[in-house]
Amino acid sequence: MATETGDVADPGLAPAGRLRVEWARGQMPVLETVRERLARERPLDGLRIACCLHVTAETANLVLALKEGGAEVWLCASNPLSTQDDVAAYLLAEGVRVFARRGEDEETYYSHIRSCLASLPDLTVDDGADLTVTLHRERRDIIGRVLGGTEETTTGVQRLRRMEAEGVLGYPVVAVNDTPTKRLFDNRFGTGQSALDGLIRATNLLLAGKTVVVAGFGQCGRGVAERARGLGARVVVVEADPVRALEAAMSGYTVLSSIKAAEVGEVFITVTGNKGVFRKEHFERMRSGAVLANAGHFDVEIDVGALRKEARSSRRVRPMVEEFVMPDGRRLYLLAEGRLVNLAAAEGHPAAVMDLSFADQALALQWLAGEGRGLAPRIYPLPEELDREVARLKLESMGAEVEVLTPEQREYLSSWTLGT
Amino acid sequence: MATETGDVADPGLAPAGRLRVEWARGQMPVLETVRERLARERPLDGLRIACCLHVTAETANLVLALKEGGAEVWLCASNPLSTQDDVAAYLLAEGVRVFARRGEDEETYYSHIRSCLASLPDLTVDDGADLTVTLHRERRDIIGRVLGGTEETTTGVQRLRRMEAEGVLGYPVVAVNDTPTKRLFDNRFGTGQSALDGLIRATNLLLAGKTVVVAGFGQCGRGVAERARGLGARVVVVEADPVRALEAAMSGYTVLSSIKAAEVGEVFITVTGNKGVFRKEHFERMRSGAVLANAGHFDVEIDVGALRKEARSSRRVRPMVEEFVMPDGRRLYLLAEGRLVNLAAAEGHPAAVMDLSFADQALALQWLAGEGRGLAPRIYPLPEELDREVARLKLESMGAEVEVLTPEQREYLSSWTLGT
Amino acid sequence: MATETGDVADPGLAPAGRLRVEWARGQMPVLETVRERLARERPLDGLRIACCLHVTAETANLVLALKEGGAEVWLCASNPLSTQDDVAAYLLAEGVRVFARRGEDEETYYSHIRSCLASLPDLTVDDGADLTVTLHRERRDIIGRVLGGTEETTTGVQRLRRMEAEGVLGYPVVAVNDTPTKRLFDNRFGTGQSALDGLIRATNLLLAGKTVVVAGFGQCGRGVAERARGLGARVVVVEADPVRALEAAMSGYTVLSSIKAAEVGEVFITVTGNKGVFRKEHFERMRSGAVLANAGHFDVEIDVGALRKEARSSRRVRPMVEEFVMPDGRRLYLLAEGRLVNLAAAEGHPAAVMDLSFADQALALQWLAGEGRGLAPRIYPLPEELDREVARLKLESMGAEVEVLTPEQREYLSSWTLGT
Amino acid sequence: MATETGDVADPGLAPAGRLRVEWARGQMPVLETVRERLARERPLDGLRIACCLHVTAETANLVLALKEGGAEVWLCASNPLSTQDDVAAYLLAEGVRVFARRGEDEETYYSHIRSCLASLPDLTVDDGADLTVTLHRERRDIIGRVLGGTEETTTGVQRLRRMEAEGVLGYPVVAVNDTPTKRLFDNRFGTGQSALDGLIRATNLLLAGKTVVVAGFGQCGRGVAERARGLGARVVVVEADPVRALEAAMSGYTVLSSIKAAEVGEVFITVTGNKGVFRKEHFERMRSGAVLANAGHFDVEIDVGALRKEARSSRRVRPMVEEFVMPDGRRLYLLAEGRLVNLAAAEGHPAAVMDLSFADQALALQWLAGEGRGLAPRIYPLPEELDREVARLKLESMGAEVEVLTPEQREYLSSWTLGT
Repeated sequence: MATETGDVADPGLAPAGRLRVEWARGQMPVLETVRERLARERPLDGLRIACCLHVTAETANLVLALKEGGAEVWLCASNPLSTQDDVAAYLLAEGVRVFARRGEDEETYYSHIRSCLASLPDLTVDDGADLTVTLHRERRDIIGRVLGGTEETTTGVQRLRRMEAEGVLGYPVVAVNDTPTKRLFDNRFGTGQSALDGLIRATNLLLAGKTVVVAGFGQCGRGVAERARGLGARVVVVEADPVRALEAAMSGYTVLSSIKAAEVGEVFITVTGNKGVFRKEHFERMRSGAVLANAGHFDVEIDVGALRKEARSSRRVRPMVEEFVMPDGRRLYLLAEGRLVNLAAAEGHPAAVMDLSFADQALALQWLAGEGRGLAPRIYPLPEELDREVARLKLESMGAEVEVLTPEQREYLSSWTLGT
Repeated sequence: MATETGDVADPGLAPAGRLRVEWARGQMPVLETVRERLARERPLDGLRIACCLHVTAETANLVLALKEGGAEVWLCASNPLSTQDDVAAYLLAEGVRVFARRGEDEETYYSHIRSCLASLPDLTVDDGADLTVTLHRERRDIIGRVLGGTEETTTGVQRLRRMEAEGVLGYPVVAVNDTPTKRLFDNRFGTGQSALDGLIRATNLLLAGKTVVVAGFGQCGRGVAERARGLGARVVVVEADPVRALEAAMSGYTVLSSIKAAEVGEVFITVTGNKGVFRKEHFERMRSGAVLANAGHFDVEIDVGALRKEARSSRRVRPMVEEFVMPDGRRLYLLAEGRLVNLAAAEGHPAAVMDLSFADQALALQWLAGEGRGLAPRIYPLPEELDREVARLKLESMGAEVEVLTPEQREYLSSWTLGT
Repeated sequence: MATETGDVADPGLAPAGRLRVEWARGQMPVLETVRERLARERPLDGLRIACCLHVTAETANLVLALKEGGAEVWLCASNPLSTQDDVAAYLLAEGVRVFARRGEDEETYYSHIRSCLASLPDLTVDDGADLTVTLHRERRDIIGRVLGGTEETTTGVQRLRRMEAEGVLGYPVVAVNDTPTKRLFDNRFGTGQSALDGLIRATNLLLAGKTVVVAGFGQCGRGVAERARGLGARVVVVEADPVRALEAAMSGYTVLSSIKAAEVGEVFITVTGNKGVFRKEHFERMRSGAVLANAGHFDVEIDVGALRKEARSSRRVRPMVEEFVMPDGRRLYLLAEGRLVNLAAAEGHPAAVMDLSFADQALALQWLAGEGRGLAPRIYPLPEELDREVARLKLESMGAEVEVLTPEQREYLSSWTLGT
Repeated sequence: MATETGDVADPGLAPAGRLRVEWARGQMPVLETVRERLARERPLDGLRIACCLHVTAETANLVLALKEGGAEVWLCASNPLSTQDDVAAYLLAEGVRVFARRGEDEETYYSHIRSCLASLPDLTVDDGADLTVTLHRERRDIIGRVLGGTEETTTGVQRLRRMEAEGVLGYPVVAVNDTPTKRLFDNRFGTGQSALDGLIRATNLLLAGKTVVVAGFGQCGRGVAERARGLGARVVVVEADPVRALEAAMSGYTVLSSIKAAEVGEVFITVTGNKGVFRKEHFERMRSGAVLANAGHFDVEIDVGALRKEARSSRRVRPMVEEFVMPDGRRLYLLAEGRLVNLAAAEGHPAAVMDLSFADQALALQWLAGEGRGLAPRIYPLPEELDREVARLKLESMGAEVEVLTPEQREYLSSWTLGT
């Protein structure tokens, strides 16, 4: 039902959406605290915010917090497939201008972005930079009125950095993606748990005693390796950076080249950000029964094309498991067609993970509302004090306490820096 | 479709059942090795085996192994709700006499047991002892021809021990349940992983940093505590046996009474085998947001009745999560209505776990086929050598190796025992 | 200075001994609680106790507790090399009859045992059974008056069991060695920490990233493997029992035969209770730089004779490290001549470990004082309730709490056992 | 024996020194590989190097490697108390110009530095910057001929940065201290193990089940916390930075303020780099029996003065343990007088840790020998490729392998960075 106030699949789904949003809220205590403060202080009064985000229960809580802060919020989807229609319906019922339907085609997708831009936004929130780029391309007339924007993802920040480098970025943008509280949760703890969750849901494998190969030992790989070990697996790490590889070895992991790892592994998980991590030469060496999963952003880490080409036959043996019979009779099992296993076979990041990055988002927007007018059109980190504030709130919600330094201790530390 | 050769829901489901059975087979290398040996040696030639088991993909692999060993197998369900109809159909197509329909009523359930007994079995396989008890009650005429039986569960062994104590047990029974390779896997590793799996599927909670209370520190509780810690949680153990409690404390867990634990926990998992572990007085002290799950066999560990009675209101917020609003506004979340969370919200034990106990089953039956006639009608442990054989085969399948002692070492050990 | 009241190396060492005993007392809260109770109740009033124990600070606390319980204590050494002369001096000054000098010869050793027997003891305490055996051989005249005895070690219990089997045991003996609180601490936690401690003190090796081979996966081996992993090592387990080997594999350890392990290990620790675990064929395969340590009771686990014979040369490179140059130039390093590394290179079990077994000892003696007269001359376990009491006291001292079952829960459990 | 070629305590100690140096060499495979390369390529031919370092077995291996690379090495101590006289004697015998005596007074200390400067060095190696500063103050005449220098420590780099800022730095210096392979090992893995080692040697405490408070969650604190947990302790973290505190909480540690931690801790370890971490208000709350140790660089983290002032009495109860009786009778135990526990009570960093930083040193000097003339007088990081080379060599020595990217993968990564 498309109207000028919104376009959602079925407004009748609002009650179901409400349940979902409320459950997520229970896992998002930091955003909740920020919401209460926004509601009290109303720093966004009179501002219009155009958001292009995955329309999920977690996003709904961000959007409602911004609304309570005084903003008029317009929301479209950052990916046509991730929209939860019931959540969209609920937000519409709550007075948010929502333009998002699960499975919308590309044309609709962009028309929805344009509907949001038609709000003449003061602030923008983006996840992948499609809205920001569209604004810069098609609506140069309104760039001048935008106080600032935020960006949630690595990919989006990459795109915006190129725009900054080329001198075309029209207003200041906060790279929420790069702030420690966002990275720490998303990558190490979020991906760590959800990748294993996806693996287990897809296969019901017992991990105790299994040899699990984790390719990539960045923050994500570290998280996956920790969780696999925590579930009783013997973990083999494959890593091209020698310093990271050394840290893995010193942490008690076995560190092997991908070819050697291919011979000993029973489960393979890729989190490198690179392509072709496991390819023909690896498939030829893997043991029958090997399971392959990708937890990296793009579905290029496992060379599915090569697997398909080499295999004698293939068939789906569980909803998320495809079996490939190799010419010599060995059987390899690919999960979720090589796509991100934590999204495809599980539910992606827990709400507790989004709690931090969306609290970061809300604080970034409040900061831009106040300071944006005076900032040059560049990429900014989230001010460190805001990042620390989010960490502090999360700790409080966990019942943990940060140590407060005494004046003597503060002085000692600074004199150290100054070099007495 | 009930005929004299079987009664399954839909024979047309056989192809789907086949896929399921084959996937499970890939996770059951020990049973596979035993199957190959049985097929070669045919020690069950000419014997009829009546099996009362959960009709699942794992059971199918046991049944087919027995068939390849020469037996004629008759199969009924040990629980009306656990039957996988496609597996039943596939087994029927493979020539097994199957009497099992998902959701069959109690009358049908017992008529199916009677159909199996009509085979005049030489051996029985049981899971809970319903078939064995029915045979003893209703078919005393055929007891004399039974060489022996096996029993898979604690509950079943309990019932049979009472029969043994009362002198009514009519033939020898192997308590497969009690053998180390069964207990080790089922309890510590199987329940450990699957209880956490159920918790995460039901809630999508992030466990890192959460305070998880595990009530009970037997083999199951140990497994759950290890896995919760492995997922980054702070684990609190509640245990009534002081020696177990001490072991938990020495293992780095926080050990508290259930009342104190109620105040600090965020997630509560019961695995005690006792009732009312968390009850009114605990619900009154728990923090808002607390999540309660049971991983013990019966649904008595969390006092759901008291929760329902005390709560101001309740509603379902996710398929497996019920929210209870307490009179003071706190919200408590109960998973799977207090039933076994690993079965209700996940898929129960991985096939790799059943691999061991079903290999134990097959070896027990082979042993009874050979030795049963000469055994008194008592409960027997699985002969230690067979248990060790299963462990050895599992290790081989994992690429691990058992050390072989030299003759000098064997002599040294025995002389030690003999006391030189 | 030998007198009729005692024989110690130097009475002037008493003040130093006192410090040592008091420091140990701080780590022995359970024994301290028992001591307070004994002092209050005086259940040993008028009894003479002959103790044959390692004369250490921990033993001193046991002996003083018995004295406060009313007993007259006579003490000799259970090993000529383990006596701490300052502790012996302090105990003598405190009125204990002490016969122990570090480094005494065998003749003196036995004369000291005879001095203790001359007390005409009512109770005996033994560590290895030398006093008990001597009493049975040489003083059959006084067997009749002995109420009972206790034995601390596996070796001693073995000897006494043979005496029991041959019908020569003259009075009841409690096998303190076998009780759970003794085994749990001594083996898993005590040996676990102290073996690694000895290894590090001897070598100053960094364990992070090292491949450590642990031969033996009993309680001791389990403890050593846990601690090695906890220090960042990759742990390889060698084990001849398939069920234990399987548990190791499922716990995430790599399980290999000793020959394969020899090729990959960097550090080797034996805790098997067997001989020749690493021998010529292993030394031939080990990498240059390999370190060998024994944490088993006897110095037979590493075949030091073969190492000496095969090596081209050897020299001491650190106080506890001997380097062997093999014919092909590889260098192997043997710690503490293959003797128990935690005693030879570190300080043996922490006092906290002895706290439990000596509290067990004290409670066993109190029990024998009351019940001994009515007991047949056999080996007895420590009554379970006493073992649980010790566990309970330890938990209290750690600030942990045992759960107390409700009457309803007790009834549920017993009805379960009874089989309703 | 002071001559123009050197000044050591006793040349006769050379054989003992040799043993020590050779044992350390076995733990320093990376430096060994670098030494072989230096010996082959002789890049330091004709250069004089003045080194001011702790004169230990590990340093000896660096110095000998430089000598084999063609350099003439002059060595003085960077701390009068850390000189191993036997090592000094051995190096002198090997033709190194050594000026170092354990316990030398300040005057001698500086005269030794001047002796080294009299060599008219081409390169300098420093640990704390005393030699570099002396050179800049007293020998401005020779600054011009120095190609470059290196600095091993944080403190030294701080001093040099101030010189750089003031424009007085006379030649380029590589901050070896700041390179990843140095920090990773020294801080997390080196301090992690050695702090616990010192604690155990000093006290023989059993850590399993103990509550250990770690104050500071930087790299050092992380290492200490990991090792304490690995030894079975329950770990409480105190941290003033909220992002670090959050990471600790998400890693499963309990995070408390220092005051709350004081109430629950049994062992306290400080690694903050700050002063007065535990002070009067904490001592008042600690339980009797609490043990305090410092693993931070300076002895200011525990307020020993306050402890001494508040205590009713104190005495030494073990060589490294001082007992303080508080007015209310509680007893607190201070290790090593609050000085760095891993150096005072154990042997400091294992040789394996120094292997990396000294390989970094050698490569830095080779680089400066080649490039130094063309560099501005500033502080330089170790070129990343050299740091990676050291990591690679260490991995090789551990039998681990770094993954080698394919040309396609390299292109994919760079195109990602470039933004296609």
